Amino acid sequence: MTLERTPVTIVGAGPAGLLLSHLLAESGIESIVLDLRSRDEIEQTIRAGILEQGTVELLDGIPGSRARTVGHRHDGIELRFAGEGHRIDFPGLVGRSVWLYPQHEVLKDLIAARLAAGQDLRFGATVERVEDAGTTSPRVIGRHDDGTAFEIVSDFVVGADGSRSVVRPTVTGSSTGGYFREYPFAWFGILCEAPPSSEELIYSNSPEGFALISQRSETVQRMYFQCDPDTDVDAMSEADLWETLQARVPGTDLAEGPIFQRDVLRFRSFVAHELRHGRAALVGDAAHTVPPTGAKGMNLAIADVVLLHRALDALLRHADERALDAYAETALRRIWKAQHFSWWMTSLLHLSPEASDFDRLRQLGELRSVVESEAGQRYLAEAYTGWPLETGAHG
Amino acid sequence: MTLERTPVTIVGAGPAGLLLSHLLAESGIESIVLDLRSRDEIEQTIRAGILEQGTVELLDGIPGSRARTVGHRHDGIELRFAGEGHRIDFPGLVGRSVWLYPQHEVLKDLIAARLAAGQDLRFGATVERVEDAGTTSPRVIGRHDDGTAFEIVSDFVVGADGSRSVVRPTVTGSSTGGYFREYPFAWFGILCEAPPSSEELIYSNSPEGFALISQRSETVQRMYFQCDPDTDVDAMSEADLWETLQARVPGTDLAEGPIFQRDVLRFRSFVAHELRHGRAALVGDAAHTVPPTGAKGMNLAIADVVLLHRALDALLRHADERALDAYAETALRRIWKAQHFSWWMTSLLHLSPEASDFDRLRQLGELRSVVESEAGQRYLAEAYTGWPLETGAHG
Repeated sequence: MTLERTPVTIVGAGPAGLLLSHLLAESGIESIVLDLRSRDEIEQTIRAGILEQGTVELLDGIPGSRARTVGHRHDGIELRFAGEGHRIDFPGLVGRSVWLYPQHEVLKDLIAARLAAGQDLRFGATVERVEDAGTTSPRVIGRHDDGTAFEIVSDFVVGADGSRSVVRPTVTGSSTGGYFREYPFAWFGILCEAPPSSEELIYSNSPEGFALISQRSETVQRMYFQCDPDTDVDAMSEADLWETLQARVPGTDLAEGPIFQRDVLRFRSFVAHELRHGRAALVGDAAHTVPPTGAKGMNLAIADVVLLHRALDALLRHADERALDAYAETALRRIWKAQHFSWWMTSLLHLSPEASDFDRLRQLGELRSVVESEAGQRYLAEAYTGWPLETGAHG
Repeated sequence: MTLERTPVTIVGAGPAGLLLSHLLAESGIESIVLDLRSRDEIEQTIRAGILEQGTVELLDGIPGSRARTVGHRHDGIELRFAGEGHRIDFPGLVGRSVWLYPQHEVLKDLIAARLAAGQDLRFGATVERVEDAGTTSPRVIGRHDDGTAFEIVSDFVVGADGSRSVVRPTVTGSSTGGYFREYPFAWFGILCEAPPSSEELIYSNSPEGFALISQRSETVQRMYFQCDPDTDVDAMSEADLWETLQARVPGTDLAEGPIFQRDVLRFRSFVAHELRHGRAALVGDAAHTVPPTGAKGMNLAIADVVLLHRALDALLRHADERALDAYAETALRRIWKAQHFSWWMTSLLHLSPEASDFDRLRQLGELRSVVESEAGQRYLAEAYTGWPLETGAHG
């Protein structure tokens, strides 16, 4: 059993935890980052990624970050419905863009950069509980993969440990304490070896249900279609998968190829009842989950981290608790806007099994209202490319 | 039993039917307008009215119309939520305004103008059925209040006879043939003798439910609050009504006064499955109903009439059926956008009894997204002040 002390203990080596350790280091604040997974597991779990411009600008500050150089800038998306495509031109509408750069690539960049900078970053370190969050010396207690127990005493503990966060109960008083919404559908996702079927993402509302045509590289593509949450991922043949996808994007001939990965992504909205308790706080998926439509997940985590970094800088370098006291309220303003946007993009594009004919035609009226209005398009583009990150202290 | 012939028979002397008779007369096309109600009944049924700028511009063409002169121009509305008011500035956003001018005043103007122009306008004339709509000589069959039967043979029959239209079955094949949506709430409306509590309309989302503070004149006000659809209109005392209203608009001291009318307005969305069959077509409430939030009802009826007038002008003066063949599709584009807007304003502002805590906080996130974005405000203002009326033929 080791007993250590560090100013900030960060639980979770995802984008939020790793970026926070970088920002803290820039402020001269040391931290330990713990993750129960191995480095390989973190880096090899393939995940999607649409980065807001503000996220890319932050990642530009990470030595060796490839988001801007290897990632693909996307200047728009297509909304397709009623057999017509409508491009949302991001630079023309809001002067910003997004970048397609998968989350696991972001993680490779961040891990390499943090290790090169001498970050205390420990894989295979499972946190079991957090104690004394109500005091100025919270303790993080856990066990390494080799069986060694550890205990770290800090000035502050950050839960950046995802939707099954072990830090969350410390903050909310219960492991599930939050606001929930379930959806009556999921996404069936595939990875395939094929050239791109489209330069930009196509969000397609069709009578058969929603589909998203996305890209990964010149030779690998990512596509999704709306399915029942209980769909057996192995039940459909490749031919059936292509037929299902193709039927939902009339007007585009999908370039087919071998499908080498398939998964079902459940839809869930969640916001924790509390984001901070004493000397512990939550960021990213530990604090909130959004459905994938609109791609807000990682970007929202980054926005939390920007706020929490400022709050910890003020607390630990200037003994000023005001930004920390404002953290939850300030973060929640963006979180609920992002929850709304994710819900809205979902309800705008998916065919709910509960929808009546009226609902379906109203939905087409809504899609038409958005694309026929510069303001409607801009309202969507502002949210998709990301509202400005908070730049100062807030009350 | 009288047997007559006229180019166009219009069933219903509401805003749509009367305006259509005016526009047809301007094209040199005669018509007969029939309504089962008396003139007094039509003129004395107090109804609200927010007129889009395009509606007012059309009414400017009616000799003696007082919409612009006696009506009040409103340059904005207030959205209130979370204890804050946010003004939506119509001229600043879209260069347009709306006018507060009750529908029964519009009707007085239209009836006087049409009678002065020699319009064949018959009150107390109950249409029983429409026959032969599939031929070029549809017949309207009914009975006057004095018991006399009548039959009118026309080139075209228009159903402008409201939500319980007797023309609708001719067009849709059944009296209810349409897309429906019900809402789990209604509006409790009052008329009171009091000075205005606000210069402009206040749409208030509060934890107690929705309220709308509207105006009628310097001495009479109209206010509404969300209630259960089964509310007994006489169950509450005046003091209770004021307390209920006041609790829903925190921040404004309501000027109270004697309440001399109270009613419960059911919420309902409806669009007929068909808007035209052969030589019969539907306009206004006969074709669609919207919930009152957003005030689209009468304005949408006017937009239908503008389209149908052009179609009848082409048909009857030039034997050109193309605009008539496009009528339903063209009208439905605006109708479904307006249905969406009415649903959206309703869902944005009301507290659904089925809403979870998540839904409620998402709703506040949505309200914040709209008011914090110029694009969001403009998107709302475009719809509220009215999309441009169709100005040409459409396919």
